[in-house]
Amino acid sequence: MTAFCGMARDLEPLFAPRSVAIVGASDDPAKWGNWLGRGALKGEHRRPVYLVNRNGGTVLDRPAYASLHDLPDAPELVVISVPAAAFEQTVDDALAVGARALVGITAGLGELGPEAQAREQALVERVRAAGAMLLGPNCLGVYDATSDLGLASNEFPPGSIGLISQSGNLALELGILARAVEMGFSRFASVGNQSDVDLAELVASFAAHEATDLIAVYAEDFSDGRAFVDAAAAASTPVVLLTVGRSAASIRAAASHTGALVSDVSVVEAACRAAGAHLVSTPGEMIDLAQALLRARPLAGPRVAVVGDGGGHGAIACDVAAAAGLELPLLSTDLSAELASELPPTAATRNPVDLAGGGEQDFYSYARVARTVLGSGEVDAVLLTGYFGGYSQYSDAFAEQEADVAREVARAAHETGRPLVAQTMYHDSPTAAVLRADGVPVYPGIGAAVGALAALLPHPPAPGAPALPPAEALPAVAGYFGARALLEAAGIAFVAAREVAGDENAVAAADELGYPVVLKALGTLHKSDAGGVVVGIAGPEELRAAVADLRRRLDPPGYSVERMAPVGDGVELIVGAGRDPRFGPVAAVGLGGIYTEIFGDVAVGLAPLDVAEAERMLFSLRGAALLAGARGRPACDVRAAAEAAVALSRVAAAYPRIAEIEVNPLLVTAEGAVALDARVIEIDAEDAG
Amino acid sequence: MTAFCGMARDLEPLFAPRSVAIVGASDDPAKWGNWLGRGALKGEHRRPVYLVNRNGGTVLDRPAYASLHDLPDAPELVVISVPAAAFEQTVDDALAVGARALVGITAGLGELGPEAQAREQALVERVRAAGAMLLGPNCLGVYDATSDLGLASNEFPPGSIGLISQSGNLALELGILARAVEMGFSRFASVGNQSDVDLAELVASFAAHEATDLIAVYAEDFSDGRAFVDAAAAASTPVVLLTVGRSAASIRAAASHTGALVSDVSVVEAACRAAGAHLVSTPGEMIDLAQALLRARPLAGPRVAVVGDGGGHGAIACDVAAAAGLELPLLSTDLSAELASELPPTAATRNPVDLAGGGEQDFYSYARVARTVLGSGEVDAVLLTGYFGGYSQYSDAFAEQEADVAREVARAAHETGRPLVAQTMYHDSPTAAVLRADGVPVYPGIGAAVGALAALLPHPPAPGAPALPPAEALPAVAGYFGARALLEAAGIAFVAAREVAGDENAVAAADELGYPVVLKALGTLHKSDAGGVVVGIAGPEELRAAVADLRRRLDPPGYSVERMAPVGDGVELIVGAGRDPRFGPVAAVGLGGIYTEIFGDVAVGLAPLDVAEAERMLFSLRGAALLAGARGRPACDVRAAAEAAVALSRVAAAYPRIAEIEVNPLLVTAEGAVALDARVIEIDAEDAG
Repeated sequence: MTAFCGMARDLEPLFAPRSVAIVGASDDPAKWGNWLGRGALKGEHRRPVYLVNRNGGTVLDRPAYASLHDLPDAPELVVISVPAAAFEQTVDDALAVGARALVGITAGLGELGPEAQAREQALVERVRAAGAMLLGPNCLGVYDATSDLGLASNEFPPGSIGLISQSGNLALELGILARAVEMGFSRFASVGNQSDVDLAELVASFAAHEATDLIAVYAEDFSDGRAFVDAAAAASTPVVLLTVGRSAASIRAAASHTGALVSDVSVVEAACRAAGAHLVSTPGEMIDLAQALLRARPLAGPRVAVVGDGGGHGAIACDVAAAAGLELPLLSTDLSAELASELPPTAATRNPVDLAGGGEQDFYSYARVARTVLGSGEVDAVLLTGYFGGYSQYSDAFAEQEADVAREVARAAHETGRPLVAQTMYHDSPTAAVLRADGVPVYPGIGAAVGALAALLPHPPAPGAPALPPAEALPAVAGYFGARALLEAAGIAFVAAREVAGDENAVAAADELGYPVVLKALGTLHKSDAGGVVVGIAGPEELRAAVADLRRRLDPPGYSVERMAPVGDGVELIVGAGRDPRFGPVAAVGLGGIYTEIFGDVAVGLAPLDVAEAERMLFSLRGAALLAGARGRPACDVRAAAEAAVALSRVAAAYPRIAEIEVNPLLVTAEGAVALDARVIEIDAEDAG
Repeated sequence: MTAFCGMARDLEPLFAPRSVAIVGASDDPAKWGNWLGRGALKGEHRRPVYLVNRNGGTVLDRPAYASLHDLPDAPELVVISVPAAAFEQTVDDALAVGARALVGITAGLGELGPEAQAREQALVERVRAAGAMLLGPNCLGVYDATSDLGLASNEFPPGSIGLISQSGNLALELGILARAVEMGFSRFASVGNQSDVDLAELVASFAAHEATDLIAVYAEDFSDGRAFVDAAAAASTPVVLLTVGRSAASIRAAASHTGALVSDVSVVEAACRAAGAHLVSTPGEMIDLAQALLRARPLAGPRVAVVGDGGGHGAIACDVAAAAGLELPLLSTDLSAELASELPPTAATRNPVDLAGGGEQDFYSYARVARTVLGSGEVDAVLLTGYFGGYSQYSDAFAEQEADVAREVARAAHETGRPLVAQTMYHDSPTAAVLRADGVPVYPGIGAAVGALAALLPHPPAPGAPALPPAEALPAVAGYFGARALLEAAGIAFVAAREVAGDENAVAAADELGYPVVLKALGTLHKSDAGGVVVGIAGPEELRAAVADLRRRLDPPGYSVERMAPVGDGVELIVGAGRDPRFGPVAAVGLGGIYTEIFGDVAVGLAPLDVAEAERMLFSLRGAALLAGARGRPACDVRAAAEAAVALSRVAAAYPRIAEIEVNPLLVTAEGAVALDARVIEIDAEDAG
């Protein structure tokens, strides 16, 4: 909960404190207090370290203080690893002696439930009132490579990734994966319960940290989701997010793990778009992507040339790249001839390029081909795949020459301004290390290499989270006609309709509207599913029969008679909005009817939408071709559909009491967009009856 | 081209020859003849090795023979690495001296074009006439771990995978990947041009090889595709296939690489289903899958429990597993309580199971939890994820104990008969090696571990390739009514139609059929796209106007007047068949209209289909819910649709001159399936005018 307003706080006391106290320091190697104490002492040359243990005596060969009150000087950072029962008193002691930052390792606090959470919040108020800050509790510590601060259970490789994680073992795995490709962490913060310092504040702080070139986040709970989006959007460093929530099981897990509120993945995807953040699904993907973003330049476009030193590798790389949406243009006759002049006669030179033994004959072929292709302007990047790096195993002379070629390959990428990404079966060779050191991402698998290239494609600018309008009190929304009124007032056009009590009113209404008409039974949320909608009623007799039938089957409190819309002339969309616990109001557009049900063709965005975002969402649908006028139909008025989505999303954003709001279908034709049905569900609607 | 008939040949002379001659043996370490000679000599303790070099003298410190005719004894296997111009003479020499098997390393032969291919085939006839066999030419040799035969450019790790590959560097990479997880090759054969011994014959031979437990294939050209399918289906060893052809670029690459004919990937997928083979996209996937198939038992069903030693790992594993189609059932209260009694109070026990430090407190927790969950019967497998293997780095005592726990974990899987697959960040630890040795597949990444589990799901039995009917001569198929007649004769019901020349015939036909009618312009292949179809014509005036309009716009040679089908009451399918260069006739079913165009919702099978296969294909469509009666409609007569697909596929299979045949749409209602349009394209239709 990002409660501070206006100016961002300076989190340096957490990461580069002038002095540190460890409360709960211990000689027992199985205890956190031991790991923290040993970690803190490694930075003793940088700052005073005070070990506090209520029994006093010595800990880790240092005199231990029995209380924070006994310290010779105010500790700037206090790390608290005491039983839950002693946590509050320790925090108060730390504030009393002038601590500016607290790290709460202690678990069993706010994550236990609402009552414990309220107590924790009261404590946080005292921390803030004292001008201090609290990371955690229920967190796993902090690490800072540049300030020699290692207050976590593990050691991490130093590097330029700022890691924020809600899991200690994941941080450990990310460290192992990063180290394997000569990368590491500038800073690490475990967020724990986010009772004071939260994800958004950490992202903003890491973005301002000079030694941090990329922010990696593993989060289960986004705390203030919109603040996170804004912090990430404002960061000039790339943000890569690993999260969970694609399955009921992972949501169960996150809830039991940290009491986290997990957001729907489609909402997280929308948030990442607004934040300009990269979303990944596994730790491996996170480090693969970090390698690409930290080492290579962005791609100017999707055109890739595959350069392989074996026909099989080249062909497989092409398939994997094409599946990832990259283009593999046929190289021009001139470029092909130029390449052929440098390679054996059996070499393929049209894309993929197959060196066909040319690399074996002269290692420099790799660099020459890379430079020729990258410099041609015919592609935006080169994907090198296969054997390169393997020659170094035969002799020192080969190793030296191959390393020199690797430097030339990297130079070709730098000097042409176009990235080169490599996959090689010798990914752990000294040659591969040279490539990486010189800015070429190197992967063991072709899937990861292609994923890296795709991630380097240009991203649209990140707008941040759309501003929320001032909350308004929801007027009484009585059923279907109430929902219509609310949305009509917001600017959505509805098909003409009359609310009627029985068959004679119905016939009068139909006379007024003109046949054919549609008859709907009111009082059921899903009218269509319940068989409560009769379409194409051609005259009064048919209408009376339809009313009688609905009465017999559903006995509804009333009916709606509506003008029949030209559904054959357009495309039916679904436009809706809901409320996410972390990201607030969100809107969705999709192809209606069976498309939504069967193909799940839906796009989600943070509400309120603007017209550009709503249009982007509509065009992102797999079925967008229908809107553009497939099968000889005229193109639909997509702008009108987008405006309806915008209007609906604004209603959802303005009234926090709306849990769900939906127009389904919204009929879009060449002439505009008209709503054919609507519903609104208030929060706690079940409770309200 | 599997030209041999009846009895399978014994390929042992290729893999376990009594003697070997290397023609083209050389002292030059940059030459194939050098690698082959050195490889052959490593097996000198098993068999005589004759080095042949036309200059005589010594090669590799052995006296070299100037000609095969000079050898003291007939060589059983002759490996030929001579210039292309000398290849034929060398083959003839080898046959003359009594060789039983030939390996042609020499390139620049049949792959160059049709003329060279004809020469190569003539040579193969001489080989076969002599009772010998030829692997290649243009191949990269053979390897056999059990017979100490290493006649390839690389060394391979020994193991139980039989590898057949069309690429040398891919074989090398597969070897590196296999070695990293303590696996290797029983045999390796490079297929080259497949002029005599082809993929299918090698698969059949490897399937009978005792030391081979899994057959791994990298193929660009399937030669006789149906023979491959039958060989794989007949094999009791699993077959894993890596191939290319998903992109225009890879098809280009394969063509330039080996002159290969590349099959459409949807056809390859259908072939793999018929073959019971596993299809993969990268070398990494191939070895990941091989590890699963060789080490673990098959799953009885899709229910998986995730056991992690960190909340983040468990949650991520659940998401990845759910995305792969695995189920993560909530564990029962009883089982959960039993697990809780063995673990710390903060442990999650409902699935995922989070040991929450329980592993740290007692390593045996891993084995106890694995046994309890696997033995419960509530899941079909356990996915272990996170840290396990990491304790071994702290001390020898820890390493010893963790290895013991690893053995217990593996024993739990064996004794309960349910597989356990592990992901650990310490995948290269001694503990992980123990797990693998004891039959637990271990992966560095959660994606690979989940992929392994999914691959262990039960597969339907592999029927092999459907038998082709005797080829029949295609009757003259004149246009639309010809296509209708051909398909009606095969048993497909068509909507009633009359071929007419102009408007008065049209009105007479419509009177006979009854209004409303449909009018189609004949003579255009894609009537609908050309605006040549007018539907819902209600009476004679409208019909005359429609005829006049079509005449003005298209001036067709004739018209079809058809009864209007009840398209609103059913689902429109597309049913078609075509011809793949390697797998022969193939059939496709899909949702018609915009579904085919926009969602690409199509299923493919080898033709002729049987009803069961056609129904399986229809139910595999994403839009299958429409057939089952979505949105309150009655269920469609899927059997009738399947029977129509079967009938059409039989026509395609019976007439080799049909290049493409299609019914689109086939209207399926609750009452049956009726074809509303049809077309047939003959091979070389363009040439025929």
